[in-house]
Amino acid sequence: MKIAILGFGTVGSGVFDVINMNSEIIAKRAGKPIEVKYVLDLRDFPGNPVEKVLVHDVNIILDDPEVKIIAEVMGGMEPAFEFTKKALSRGKSVCTSNKELVAAHGAELIELAAKNNCDYYFEASVGGGIPIIRSLCDSLVGDDILEIKGIVNGTTNYILTRMGEDGLDFNVALKEAQDNGYAERNPAADIDGIDAQRKAAILASLAAGAQVDCDDIPTEGITKVTAEDIAAAKGLGAKIKLLVNIRRDDEKVSAMVAPFLVFENCQLYHVNNVFNGILVTGNATGDVLFYGKGAGKLPTAGAVAGDIIEAAKYYGLPSDTIWSREKANMAKQGSSVGRFYVRLNENEAMEARKLLGVTAESASSKSGEVAFITEAMSEDDFNSKIAKLNALSKIRVYD
Amino acid sequence: MKIAILGFGTVGSGVFDVINMNSEIIAKRAGKPIEVKYVLDLRDFPGNPVEKVLVHDVNIILDDPEVKIIAEVMGGMEPAFEFTKKALSRGKSVCTSNKELVAAHGAELIELAAKNNCDYYFEASVGGGIPIIRSLCDSLVGDDILEIKGIVNGTTNYILTRMGEDGLDFNVALKEAQDNGYAERNPAADIDGIDAQRKAAILASLAAGAQVDCDDIPTEGITKVTAEDIAAAKGLGAKIKLLVNIRRDDEKVSAMVAPFLVFENCQLYHVNNVFNGILVTGNATGDVLFYGKGAGKLPTAGAVAGDIIEAAKYYGLPSDTIWSREKANMAKQGSSVGRFYVRLNENEAMEARKLLGVTAESASSKSGEVAFITEAMSEDDFNSKIAKLNALSKIRVYD
Repeated sequence: MKIAILGFGTVGSGVFDVINMNSEIIAKRAGKPIEVKYVLDLRDFPGNPVEKVLVHDVNIILDDPEVKIIAEVMGGMEPAFEFTKKALSRGKSVCTSNKELVAAHGAELIELAAKNNCDYYFEASVGGGIPIIRSLCDSLVGDDILEIKGIVNGTTNYILTRMGEDGLDFNVALKEAQDNGYAERNPAADIDGIDAQRKAAILASLAAGAQVDCDDIPTEGITKVTAEDIAAAKGLGAKIKLLVNIRRDDEKVSAMVAPFLVFENCQLYHVNNVFNGILVTGNATGDVLFYGKGAGKLPTAGAVAGDIIEAAKYYGLPSDTIWSREKANMAKQGSSVGRFYVRLNENEAMEARKLLGVTAESASSKSGEVAFITEAMSEDDFNSKIAKLNALSKIRVYD
Repeated sequence: MKIAILGFGTVGSGVFDVINMNSEIIAKRAGKPIEVKYVLDLRDFPGNPVEKVLVHDVNIILDDPEVKIIAEVMGGMEPAFEFTKKALSRGKSVCTSNKELVAAHGAELIELAAKNNCDYYFEASVGGGIPIIRSLCDSLVGDDILEIKGIVNGTTNYILTRMGEDGLDFNVALKEAQDNGYAERNPAADIDGIDAQRKAAILASLAAGAQVDCDDIPTEGITKVTAEDIAAAKGLGAKIKLLVNIRRDDEKVSAMVAPFLVFENCQLYHVNNVFNGILVTGNATGDVLFYGKGAGKLPTAGAVAGDIIEAAKYYGLPSDTIWSREKANMAKQGSSVGRFYVRLNENEAMEARKLLGVTAESASSKSGEVAFITEAMSEDDFNSKIAKLNALSKIRVYD
């Protein structure tokens, strides 16, 4: 079986390496040898083994009937979207790590694949090497999925972990993450929660079987989280984590991305550094946690390679992922109920306690400040109450 | 699509409930409604909704061409083995939670299913609702699986957790587990490691793609673990966990079941009470942890229901699980290298330290005793050295 790889960046070269490194096992598991016939990239790679299969024109790949499966690992919306549509229209299965494209057009591309008796697979789009997508689609299929909560962005988890361990300020931890190659020079997509939002859209859509768009997902990044908050959270027995928080209830879905206080009794408390952890709650299975490296060349490439093998095994059969283009029925924003952490100046403490109620108080507040956890209330209720105060910080609590 | 359930015990009644409770979602995901046409049990259940579909003769099910899928949740070797062979021979897919049967005859039954264009699925045989089997077979398929380490028995994990939390003696913790319904009245299969051994055989066979028998897996239970050991381990920063430990190396496989000291930097340290956790290391993906309830009516039933949906989706296609009947190439027992925890009387301390080396010493030893961790050495080497001493305890260390 001949395949092509679109893009020879970090993930693309990883896919090339994994397919070659594990060729024997892959042939056995796919039921036939898998060979990379083309790699598409605009650049040249003199001296690299990829040279022998490198092409600069996508039509060489699209027009070659021998190519049955394409790994789209270019990233970004265009030309990836156009290339994917053309490939699927010609009955070529596509396996991708492109979360931006999957979040926006996953349902449409799955439908197109099904029409053409091929597959559109995207295990690598969420959680890198963690097999969360196939588990949702093929393993936990007997379950009604009630909740998905997870840490899906390694960069922000690394920053928050370093802030928590050594009391680093946000900017210092970010700089360290950049120096270690865990954060990009322009870190906005990570620290503003955009990357997590795309993954949340994919997970929420799969849980609902219908389209949840990025715009449906209120998103807050971690730039407002301070060293004082992390110290105060520690005083409450909690860590601060950037979570995707998806809930289904009476056929309505809600999804958000925001920093949350997470306590030690939750498995996500123990998900640190660049690791990802995703906690799925089904009505039969209960809680299942998936944990691993959510990014990186080989983990992501391994997930793409797994998809390629599945696409080879089921080649010629229609895709069966349940994700319709119909809009999911979204719960009213602001209606979700939970507790909140607030930090404010001591002179507002008495009023704040009266307004919000207190269920726990931090032992590690900065002098002149108090930090506590409120009673449970709806987001709307909390927002209208907190507007009367000059809160220094407000962060949701995961209970 | 009509199905039958063999056995109306805990898991069987759970499957019946899940199929009815989630019928709408299941119909959508399977592409067709799924209906329980028969339930086989020797008993009667007057007044139970199952009555309408209850039969006492398996041949009614086997002879009915309308029944395409069978959930075998009887447990035990016979008659489950015979019924499964007959069902598969007639092209009926079988989904099971029966780890004893899968461990002994999985390869043979997969081969029989493939010959008859049907499936033999066993997600529920390891880890209850945790989707570990399908993840190994369908998601991490691009990876060479190097290691699988896990806590796969909830009963023993509960006992060890309670011993660690409250300093309970083994017998007190076992009694508590029995009172809570987490341990059976005859707890031998759990506390002697037999249940974990069967699961280890299944996991090792899937990792190797060849047969690893229970007899190939040296197994130690938890009956020799004392409150003193747990306190001393705590003094070393570790917990004691019953692990399956599978390693592949140069095309050889080794597998064992034994108590291990596990440190806080390992995710398995945080897997407590009745929960299971399985850590898979692939050569591309790195470490992935799966965590959830490893037993219980609904989690196990949810896994069987997931298998039923997959069997319905792929009905008429041959099974493609890679697990050949050929014996796996087992590594020589005793050759695996690691550190060991030992506890002995103070008067032997000097000789023990000289013989075994010391890499860490416990602060919480009972008066008159010492407990420490040795240097790394092979099992054989350790055993020949420790034979010269009157050790009170010896436990492997997971590093």
